[in-house]
Amino acid sequence: MDGSAGLADAFKQCEYPVVGHGRRNLGMLLEALEGADALQDADMYGKGKIIEDFQAKIAAFVGKPAAAFFPSGTMAQQIALRIWCDEKKSKRVAFHPLCHLEIHEEDGLKELHGIQPTLLGDADRLIRVEDVRALGEEEDTACLLLELPQREIGGQLPPYEELEAIAELCRSRGIRLHLDGARLFEILPYYGKSAADICSLFDSVYVSFYKGLGGIAGAILAGEASFVADANIWKRRHGGDLISLYPYIISSDYYFELRVGRMAQYYEEARELAALFNGCPSVRTVPAEPVSSMFHVHAERSKGAFEAALEAVCRRTGIGLSSWVKATGEHSSAFEATVGDRYAGVPKDKLREAFRVLGEELSAR
Amino acid sequence: MDGSAGLADAFKQCEYPVVGHGRRNLGMLLEALEGADALQDADMYGKGKIIEDFQAKIAAFVGKPAAAFFPSGTMAQQIALRIWCDEKKSKRVAFHPLCHLEIHEEDGLKELHGIQPTLLGDADRLIRVEDVRALGEEEDTACLLLELPQREIGGQLPPYEELEAIAELCRSRGIRLHLDGARLFEILPYYGKSAADICSLFDSVYVSFYKGLGGIAGAILAGEASFVADANIWKRRHGGDLISLYPYIISSDYYFELRVGRMAQYYEEARELAALFNGCPSVRTVPAEPVSSMFHVHAERSKGAFEAALEAVCRRTGIGLSSWVKATGEHSSAFEATVGDRYAGVPKDKLREAFRVLGEELSAR
Repeated sequence: MDGSAGLADAFKQCEYPVVGHGRRNLGMLLEALEGADALQDADMYGKGKIIEDFQAKIAAFVGKPAAAFFPSGTMAQQIALRIWCDEKKSKRVAFHPLCHLEIHEEDGLKELHGIQPTLLGDADRLIRVEDVRALGEEEDTACLLLELPQREIGGQLPPYEELEAIAELCRSRGIRLHLDGARLFEILPYYGKSAADICSLFDSVYVSFYKGLGGIAGAILAGEASFVADANIWKRRHGGDLISLYPYIISSDYYFELRVGRMAQYYEEARELAALFNGCPSVRTVPAEPVSSMFHVHAERSKGAFEAALEAVCRRTGIGLSSWVKATGEHSSAFEATVGDRYAGVPKDKLREAFRVLGEELSAR
Repeated sequence: MDGSAGLADAFKQCEYPVVGHGRRNLGMLLEALEGADALQDADMYGKGKIIEDFQAKIAAFVGKPAAAFFPSGTMAQQIALRIWCDEKKSKRVAFHPLCHLEIHEEDGLKELHGIQPTLLGDADRLIRVEDVRALGEEEDTACLLLELPQREIGGQLPPYEELEAIAELCRSRGIRLHLDGARLFEILPYYGKSAADICSLFDSVYVSFYKGLGGIAGAILAGEASFVADANIWKRRHGGDLISLYPYIISSDYYFELRVGRMAQYYEEARELAALFNGCPSVRTVPAEPVSSMFHVHAERSKGAFEAALEAVCRRTGIGLSSWVKATGEHSSAFEATVGDRYAGVPKDKLREAFRVLGEELSAR
């Protein structure tokens, strides 16, 4: 068994996995369906109480007039950008170099929509208002996509005032502002704002129901009624207007209700957990102090060495800190941590012991 | 209440709906999940036992080396055509004028893939081998899509020999042949062939799990391994590579197992039901004798008059023959009938009485 499988295996079997809500298994769906009314009608091609009610509920939560439920954020966000491009008769958008559309979607935006992104700013930092100001007007950018928090750099957030300045600049330049809010719920405690407050800065908003909320799959795209009407046409074109989406809608609603109120707790716990990592030799978190339920953990060790240390912690203490590590250099590596329901159930003394062992294991490698 | 809502309402409340398997409600999912193992791992982005096993099972059923599960047929079929177009460096495919891609998908094939279809043959009849022969070679057609049965004209089928001749012609011309097998399972009894026999004539095959099988949603696209590998990349681009598809996979598998063996029964019952319609004045079915579980029912009456007659049958006899009618002309109208599990439970004497009343009601209008 190689190091990687060894760590995954150790994490799977450990007594106290520290990150996440729980295993992704059929129990997640069964729990969401407990008490479901068998006689409730399915949604049919976007119509019906079950889909319309949920769309209205999330539209209200994010403070937009309308919303459409999508099977995936990949589909929802390409469509949002396409609508803004068509509005401006442009094929140009702007986003972060590590935007989900740039690195995780097999270039769907380019291959299906012929849209060319301007990669704004540097990969290792947030987009700044200066980056937006430097966007040449000649490029005819139809839309700027901002991801809050910026997942691939640990879930960082700009100061709220900078967000407001970017929104103001986009408005004055006629650039639509789209929110990749895959983890929008997770940032509300840090900003101390409502979702509607934050979304009021954006023309269109995508939120996910399986990231911090821990649902099965599904997304909402929200905006003005005409925007959402167009989005529904594009949803059909993409093959996302399924005859029935209710398995995802019911579970999205269930986990939204279960966890949206726990985001302040996850945020606080994430800061606590990050502090423990930062107390270890050769380890640091990004951000140094988390601004949501997530952060990245970097070690000045090779992937193999960090994996071996984490696996040893797992096997010696029963505490699972991560199931995987990725190389960031020959002698450096990292993983992503997201705090969910599991954290509160981990005994604090065992957790402290695990970090003592982690320090020991890292020092030995 | 207008005529249309009146009929839909009467059908919904009637004692014996004649068509379909049952109401599309949450009970369909709950039934499919009975006995599910809560500890079974979810599929993750196309990986995992639950999706891989089902893909392998359906690939074997249709006699292809590989298969990919899709949330929708709309997505699966656009992708199949795109792959064949890319292979030939062409943007030209051919299909029937009433093909699903032409009339039900908001032009996704054109808008997302820039593919131009040649509409082959006439809208009111099947594609013939002569139509394929007449396809100019200069058009550089990458792929011909055949839908079996041809749904929008009542679910008609060509003689099997003609199918073989079309396949042979396509092979000799270097045109890929794709099967829109949304209702493939339903035609096996008529042809007296296995799915693998029929699919051996095609380069790629799409099947649906919510048409005759009555699942919640979901589709399979099958073909050679390299074709399916490409299809999975396009699935991600379309936003169909959901983190977890298992709610659709489990229900697809459940209803496949439940009903794939009943297709001969539905076919026989469809012929019986069509004969009853054809015994009514001013009514005829297309095809005159069904070749699958489905057929269309045409009346020489306005939409309103046919609706009123069907609603009266519903209310007087408790037998629901259809929940809707569409106009096909000022004085003609039609609906689609698909025989499923409900038919066997309808008392034959009540059914005969319903048709006596239908004849009476139609004569009075």
